[in-house]
Amino acid sequence: MPNPLDQPLAAIAAQLADGSLEARALVEAAQARHDPSLNAYKTWAPEFALRQAAAADAAFAAGSRLGALQGIPVSVKDLYGVEGLPTFAGSPRELPLRWREQGPIVRSLRNQIAVIMGKSHTVEFAFGGLGVNAHWPAPWNPQDRKTHRSPGGSSSGAGVSLGEGTALLAFGTDTGGSVRIPASVTGTVGLKTTKGRWSTAGIVPLSQVFDTAGTLTRSAADAAFAFAALDGEAVPALDGMGGVTLAVAEPFFWEGAEPGVAERVQEALKLAAAAGAKTSEMALPGSAEVYELYHRGGIISAELFAFLKRDLPDWIPTLDSRVRKRMEAGSALPAWEFLQRRDRYDALGAGAAAALETVDALVCPTVPITPPPMAAITDDDTYMRINLRMLRNTCVVNFMGLCAVTLPAGRDAAAMPVGLQLIGRPGSEARLLAIAGAMERLLKQKDVWSSPAI
Amino acid sequence: MPNPLDQPLAAIAAQLADGSLEARALVEAAQARHDPSLNAYKTWAPEFALRQAAAADAAFAAGSRLGALQGIPVSVKDLYGVEGLPTFAGSPRELPLRWREQGPIVRSLRNQIAVIMGKSHTVEFAFGGLGVNAHWPAPWNPQDRKTHRSPGGSSSGAGVSLGEGTALLAFGTDTGGSVRIPASVTGTVGLKTTKGRWSTAGIVPLSQVFDTAGTLTRSAADAAFAFAALDGEAVPALDGMGGVTLAVAEPFFWEGAEPGVAERVQEALKLAAAAGAKTSEMALPGSAEVYELYHRGGIISAELFAFLKRDLPDWIPTLDSRVRKRMEAGSALPAWEFLQRRDRYDALGAGAAAALETVDALVCPTVPITPPPMAAITDDDTYMRINLRMLRNTCVVNFMGLCAVTLPAGRDAAAMPVGLQLIGRPGSEARLLAIAGAMERLLKQKDVWSSPAI
Repeated sequence: MPNPLDQPLAAIAAQLADGSLEARALVEAAQARHDPSLNAYKTWAPEFALRQAAAADAAFAAGSRLGALQGIPVSVKDLYGVEGLPTFAGSPRELPLRWREQGPIVRSLRNQIAVIMGKSHTVEFAFGGLGVNAHWPAPWNPQDRKTHRSPGGSSSGAGVSLGEGTALLAFGTDTGGSVRIPASVTGTVGLKTTKGRWSTAGIVPLSQVFDTAGTLTRSAADAAFAFAALDGEAVPALDGMGGVTLAVAEPFFWEGAEPGVAERVQEALKLAAAAGAKTSEMALPGSAEVYELYHRGGIISAELFAFLKRDLPDWIPTLDSRVRKRMEAGSALPAWEFLQRRDRYDALGAGAAAALETVDALVCPTVPITPPPMAAITDDDTYMRINLRMLRNTCVVNFMGLCAVTLPAGRDAAAMPVGLQLIGRPGSEARLLAIAGAMERLLKQKDVWSSPAI
Repeated sequence: MPNPLDQPLAAIAAQLADGSLEARALVEAAQARHDPSLNAYKTWAPEFALRQAAAADAAFAAGSRLGALQGIPVSVKDLYGVEGLPTFAGSPRELPLRWREQGPIVRSLRNQIAVIMGKSHTVEFAFGGLGVNAHWPAPWNPQDRKTHRSPGGSSSGAGVSLGEGTALLAFGTDTGGSVRIPASVTGTVGLKTTKGRWSTAGIVPLSQVFDTAGTLTRSAADAAFAFAALDGEAVPALDGMGGVTLAVAEPFFWEGAEPGVAERVQEALKLAAAAGAKTSEMALPGSAEVYELYHRGGIISAELFAFLKRDLPDWIPTLDSRVRKRMEAGSALPAWEFLQRRDRYDALGAGAAAALETVDALVCPTVPITPPPMAAITDDDTYMRINLRMLRNTCVVNFMGLCAVTLPAGRDAAAMPVGLQLIGRPGSEARLLAIAGAMERLLKQKDVWSSPAI
């Protein structure tokens, strides 16, 4: 008998709802897949999860349908407050109890009785794209069982939790790419929501200006299901690629792509065009300037420093040196320069949003490089160089106030997953997810990529 | 025959509407009162005004009623963009043409064919509460024809334009008190709106965080009329003081009040209580800390520096030294400290707003001191000391995100007007204006204060 986990979320939810599947059985099946050597979780909570599964089953038995995620195993990044579980935020010790307070997303999960399996690892205070953490071992990217490669960051355990099979939906945060990078390198689908669409209350902040909450799922179909369950806006199912308009991003987004990365994304674009999508080319106005501003550091560093100094001063002395160094680079940034940069980002973002009115999505590789072996991240200079390359194509989306989806488009020359990023105007999440769904069906037909959740 | 100007705005508007008064006659009567020695205007625009009056009359004759302010003479602070008139913002030379672009408030005035008489003087870039300006002579406070006293700032010409009679409604901006201080010291009524209620687009910015637009009028009745004409929310007329709850502010707001100031405000409170208002005492939580933060300088200085550096760098070398010195004190403020202070203001403001849910208004003197003779503002130290005292009771309202109204409560020992400040929770403008209207009728009955507009 096939494992009930190996189905799309919608099918699983339907079976839970009609009583042909029990949440307890589903959760036990997920727990049976837990592989501690992959190290997805900072806090693995089997008893906690089983209590939720029992509650979900009791509610089903009583005829209560509390939401589409009732009984579904999920992981949450260890920045989200969850009552009953500690919050470390990647730091060496538990944060004060107030950081267990639940924001709207976790409250929604608990009100629906989704089953929180545990809290996934994060880079310390979410400040880094590689997944390394001086205090805790980096999760293992399940896409390469031989070499310990970067699981992406800062939501470093999120994609891993999906890959091992202990969660069917993983919550991360994305300030410069921290949902999309882990999704891309673990062969999953990542949604970066528009700033302000989903509340970040109850989540340890990195940047008030740029923080967003987002999801990782095994498929775009699952992403659409979860989005509708959390957001309320439904994702329209597309019949195919007819009526879809895609623009190929300018050379900036393709520079330095490692072998197989650009090729997979371009092949996927060709498939989409052959299936009826209209494709064109578009230079996203301002993207190079935005990246240049980011490269100089500033806004996020200053915000992290302000937050820690005020709320968690005792956590500063023990900071991971790679987090501390970048944070301290921003500690001297004058306020006037902070304000100028923020205003400049806003202005450039407005121009980008206007340009994106003419197409559904701009397309580029999510991450231009093969996820590096952890052993290659030797000294701080190497770390900085690789970190910047990992973040290049994703951070632009945050700084311009846009939204984006990444989906797997095949494997690169190192046999690691390649993510294709669909960048859309603010608020266009449902359209992007609909297109991602149509594209993943196409990629499955052509045997380029498939997951049990498609 | 009495001058048509010497009536409440509502009566004048009714006469304009029924044809018994022509806008041209009204505007000419206002122009006849222009006293250049009072120096209310940076740009006095008689021809420009007469063209608008003619247009207003033509529209009336054609049966077009474009808004309640059609044909009404108004002044606008020389920070507001007005097509056809230069913008100096208190600086020595005209700003680039883009600063003539009209924001929503001026567009509303022009769409209603209110008659813009000219652009009133301002402290350079609105950064100061006394009304002094190194480049242009300070307006003369019309409440003392013998001694040149502070007209208040930064909307230094606004109250003067009402006092001389060339405008029946004056537009200012209020970042720390720049509407309420001029209103208080010139014996007029000032409205400081809640941040964000009225757009500040098309107005030269001082602080994106704290800038608000507001009105000065000869009476609370006029203020209510203008508010409804611009805002859309009507101001309910109160029968008397029954059902009104007023709280006397804590000692912080009364400390160092000069002779007659506290007395007039307390007498007015007693009158209100005798007329049926419920009075109590309340300490506004956080006010002392907010003032202490303000005292250290920071947010506004950094914002002004960021703005000038980016948009008007050539205006920096010629800055009024009193503006420059305070601005430069903020130029070194680190971003993290800016963010901490802003967040602290937000947190304190939330507490204050919650406390103000229990009463209609907190009451205190608007300005604790007698408007000083300009000759007393000798050196920079004296300027700084007096400026801080002028702003003390008003700036707290901005930094806490509240709204407020000031109305005249009599005269101090130097025979200068005393302003009574009603501070309300965010969005309570209409209620504050209604209470101010009831109080001014009471003060008129008791012969404490009256204007032709009551």
